[in-house]
Amino acid sequence: MSGTVDQRMNELGITLPAPPKPLGAYVETVQVGSLLFLSGALPVEGGAPKFTGRLGDDIDVQQGREAAKLAVLNALALARQSLGSLDAVARVVRLKVSLATTPEFRDHAKVADGASEVLAGIFGKEKTSTRMVAGVVSLPAGVCAVVELVLAIG
Amino acid sequence: MSGTVDQRMNELGITLPAPPKPLGAYVETVQVGSLLFLSGALPVEGGAPKFTGRLGDDIDVQQGREAAKLAVLNALALARQSLGSLDAVARVVRLKVSLATTPEFRDHAKVADGASEVLAGIFGKEKTSTRMVAGVVSLPAGVCAVVELVLAIG
Amino acid sequence: MSGTVDQRMNELGITLPAPPKPLGAYVETVQVGSLLFLSGALPVEGGAPKFTGRLGDDIDVQQGREAAKLAVLNALALARQSLGSLDAVARVVRLKVSLATTPEFRDHAKVADGASEVLAGIFGKEKTSTRMVAGVVSLPAGVCAVVELVLAIG
Repeated sequence: MSGTVDQRMNELGITLPAPPKPLGAYVETVQVGSLLFLSGALPVEGGAPKFTGRLGDDIDVQQGREAAKLAVLNALALARQSLGSLDAVARVVRLKVSLATTPEFRDHAKVADGASEVLAGIFGKEKTSTRMVAGVVSLPAGVCAVVELVLAIG
Repeated sequence: MSGTVDQRMNELGITLPAPPKPLGAYVETVQVGSLLFLSGALPVEGGAPKFTGRLGDDIDVQQGREAAKLAVLNALALARQSLGSLDAVARVVRLKVSLATTPEFRDHAKVADGASEVLAGIFGKEKTSTRMVAGVVSLPAGVCAVVELVLAIG
Repeated sequence: MSGTVDQRMNELGITLPAPPKPLGAYVETVQVGSLLFLSGALPVEGGAPKFTGRLGDDIDVQQGREAAKLAVLNALALARQSLGSLDAVARVVRLKVSLATTPEFRDHAKVADGASEVLAGIFGKEKTSTRMVAGVVSLPAGVCAVVELVLAIG
């Protein structure tokens, strides 16, 4: 594969991780019509979860941004595995970012931008998604961030 | 614009707020086919978040209902900005309400009805949505309620 | 009704509960094109919520698995009521599992498998869904698990 998106990732110095394996009895992607739904993606590197902990406690905003970025790169690895090439992505429709936080945490938008900015870099601003971010009390494997993507396929 | 929905809002004394600006690197709406996805909408008035706090603590059920209503009006302001007119809405497909709560809070349905009831008033019962409501540990800007809408466009 | 899915449920000894009633001003299902969106379904039996409490505290993983299974059977009861027959389900597109947990809880995937495994038994592995699971601070009626389904209709 050597399409536009792969070239842009090369220029940005971004290498997608190996697509993660499901942690249970589910699949990573389902396409219905032009919509590709993806399972929640964790910040996994070399098969192991990174950035375990809580924002507002033992994870700071910069680490949270890196976690959100790593999670979204795992999601894109799954999308590429499913689609063959990320050039098939017509639009990033929706990005949901779930963050493990303390009750007092307020910087959700800054952390979620760690995922949104890498998507904008890879796909361009004209494919920017809607977004929802919320602070949850716990996430699988104790990570501080999980992202869910819905993509439109062109 | 002076379609049916605007008339009904007039009769109900409802004025939509100015459409909020994104808090980060995302957009407020994306349409794919007949589905319009919206970003999470906060209870914002005059550009400032209202109803900060937690249900079960410093926010009571009535305040939570007003927060859910204000958040959904912000979402509708975004939908109208995107569509030109809310008369294009064929159906409210999905309403997700995320509430910042204490672990002991139980009145999620009553609070979420603050959003559902204003939608029923504006669009009529025949366009009523599915719904999900959950209690989260924190939300952007410290608000007690965020709503996400998916609309079907006719 | 006596289609393939009903036969498989018979063989598995699964009886769907009576479809639950909405807890507020919403509806249980909305279909748009080939997608059927369902409201959040609680682990309800005989009209009453079961499995109230928190994972990591007074609910253990096995009880959580039963709660997730019961919630997904309630969701399927709603889908069958809406579609006439579950044979119309071409694919389970998305399963979202929200679990009320302590901040320290880590076994989200094991609990969510309680829902995923019953779906695989009923619909077959080839219709397996994407999945997202997160730990929330509170859920309606104090239950420990709520599931949301999106189905593709054939």
